[in-house]
Amino acid sequence: MKGNFIYSNPTRLYFGDEAQKNLASALEGFGKKVLLVYGGGSIRRNGVYDDVMAALHQTGKEVVELSGVMPNPTLAKLNEGRRVARENNVDFILAVGGGSTIDYSKAVSVAAWYDGDAWDRYFVRQEDPQPGERIIPVGAVLTMAGTGSEMNGGSVITNQEAKLKIGKVFGEEVMPKFAVLNPRYTFSLPHRQMVAGIFDTMIHIMEQYFSGDDDSTSDYLAEGLMRSLIASSRVAVNDPENYEARSNIMWTATWALNTLIGKGKIQDWMVHMIGQAISAHTDATHGMTLSGVSVAYYRHVMNYGLDRFARFARVVWDIPSDGKSDSQLASEGIDALEAWIREIGAAAEISSLGVTEALIEPIADATIIFDAGYHRLDRSEVIEILRESL
Amino acid sequence: MKGNFIYSNPTRLYFGDEAQKNLASALEGFGKKVLLVYGGGSIRRNGVYDDVMAALHQTGKEVVELSGVMPNPTLAKLNEGRRVARENNVDFILAVGGGSTIDYSKAVSVAAWYDGDAWDRYFVRQEDPQPGERIIPVGAVLTMAGTGSEMNGGSVITNQEAKLKIGKVFGEEVMPKFAVLNPRYTFSLPHRQMVAGIFDTMIHIMEQYFSGDDDSTSDYLAEGLMRSLIASSRVAVNDPENYEARSNIMWTATWALNTLIGKGKIQDWMVHMIGQAISAHTDATHGMTLSGVSVAYYRHVMNYGLDRFARFARVVWDIPSDGKSDSQLASEGIDALEAWIREIGAAAEISSLGVTEALIEPIADATIIFDAGYHRLDRSEVIEILRESL
Repeated sequence: MKGNFIYSNPTRLYFGDEAQKNLASALEGFGKKVLLVYGGGSIRRNGVYDDVMAALHQTGKEVVELSGVMPNPTLAKLNEGRRVARENNVDFILAVGGGSTIDYSKAVSVAAWYDGDAWDRYFVRQEDPQPGERIIPVGAVLTMAGTGSEMNGGSVITNQEAKLKIGKVFGEEVMPKFAVLNPRYTFSLPHRQMVAGIFDTMIHIMEQYFSGDDDSTSDYLAEGLMRSLIASSRVAVNDPENYEARSNIMWTATWALNTLIGKGKIQDWMVHMIGQAISAHTDATHGMTLSGVSVAYYRHVMNYGLDRFARFARVVWDIPSDGKSDSQLASEGIDALEAWIREIGAAAEISSLGVTEALIEPIADATIIFDAGYHRLDRSEVIEILRESL
Repeated sequence: MKGNFIYSNPTRLYFGDEAQKNLASALEGFGKKVLLVYGGGSIRRNGVYDDVMAALHQTGKEVVELSGVMPNPTLAKLNEGRRVARENNVDFILAVGGGSTIDYSKAVSVAAWYDGDAWDRYFVRQEDPQPGERIIPVGAVLTMAGTGSEMNGGSVITNQEAKLKIGKVFGEEVMPKFAVLNPRYTFSLPHRQMVAGIFDTMIHIMEQYFSGDDDSTSDYLAEGLMRSLIASSRVAVNDPENYEARSNIMWTATWALNTLIGKGKIQDWMVHMIGQAISAHTDATHGMTLSGVSVAYYRHVMNYGLDRFARFARVVWDIPSDGKSDSQLASEGIDALEAWIREIGAAAEISSLGVTEALIEPIADATIIFDAGYHRLDRSEVIEILRESL
């Protein structure tokens, strides 16, 4: 385990097919006025809204609703949320939905009582709220597994005007106080969204796994999570109401990105950087942008981290190593990843997401590049990767 | 992931070769009077005591020392600690040492202000402190990896008079507020104790892994931890000052028993039950009692959970499955475990720990038996296992 680090995660998880029964007691410690944040209204059709309202009423909360949070929450929507939270002086934000809704709620929680330009401060300049500043506490009821937002400080907001989608990782004070994780709440999710969430989870793990050449417990944990996810994904795509598989997927998604497997690691995140630039230009589903570019990306950087890619093939995909060179083994690992992307029905080509040749240069320009995993890309390499992903 | 459960872990971990630099700030939120608990004085020789005292002085704490905590902390010592904590009205307990010291500190924290028979209440009757009762908060500076006590609610106390060693798992309110994990603090540990800690970690994982026939993410995480531990143990036994290996071992030990990999699991713990009965009769090192009986135990229950034992062989020990029956594969997995026990120098026979034929019946009588993993033992089977382990 390299370096010095702190591990601390304050989010309390209520997991299981009766997890919502804990919601009322989870809400008790917080103030009377709750901002209920959700998306397009699917929670009204699948019963989740009713479960949540029952708990809110049971605890005598006053509820202010804020719906219509979109898949890639926008700065304009954030500004609306700030205003509503502030005008109503809410004590707590309850996010009911997937990662977008929770990401958005965190952004509202830090932006509501900040008088300046929140986008510029938190996202562009990547600052943190200072001690003493008012942050509205957030809780979550998860209806889609994938982003891990339920147990971390991450928040991604899209500035449509500037065509920028930027993520910020806030500290413990912004992380959800609790999250209700009922795998059955994910059953009614459209198939495509389930698959996007599965791939999102996989790539979160891979972004943390593909860096470093040391022996680190974090990488062994990452392998365990990947193996579990792959096994359960194969069940879930054919049988979406398989509780065992969906519960494993939900649990894996949470632990894939709650800081654990990144401890002692440098981490990569370039697939996300390219994917976020695609979303900013196309509004494509996050997880699909990542599956769309990952194979080309990993083929591109494979030779800079051959040992790790060979290990990925061997341990994660159970590919026999007998007599193969590391290079061949590594390549077979990426083949297995690609085959799995097609098998589960994630996007294998970004042209299917609306990316055209004409968009490639603007997307490359919107891609934030940094030193990360095994190789620092330059702009021309981003363009190559995008072209190979078409 | 079976069942409904809560995951919440309030312990803040400071990890790395400079982790102790966080101690002063970690102590800040707590009261002025600190009970400093430690064992036989090795921390005075290896510099840990000086680091800790520097932090205590820096924060202006008043220190009451309580040393001499033994490897299997006794009820008599607990009673001494209660008295000292109470007479000095301490605000905080800082445990500096391994699992025994931390276990002991938790017991003092709940027993100090309880007027009744703490042994009977917490250990025999397995009760919990009630809301409103005074619990003295505990923090830890870890000097030995293995028990996981630094991030859980576990506490094991031995009643020498009654020849009973009983563990109690307390809730979040008793768990350490923080733990300082500096792998270098474990470098000066005697070789035998390092090895005992490594095996203790391994068996913690196995006790949680060997139960159930469902597909659970917890088991994949367990496999990752076991693979990491095995790899690092092989480095550490030959090169105890290898920071990479010792840091992985320390991190693995913490995550092996902080509740994560037990989520959704029934768990076993029969190796511990037998091992604890041995310790109560011989005062043998905890980890060594576990290595001493585990091979015979697992051979005994293997056929009741053949799938899992075959998977253990394949995934944890990388044993090729080609053409083998599950039974053969499972058996080879236990062979690999046994070979590893000898390779790292853990106890392979309990006769080496002072167990004689004459002690077998008394130890069997002191063994607490419950429904757990793949098979419920009866007394005659415990005797068989003990005899095979001699």
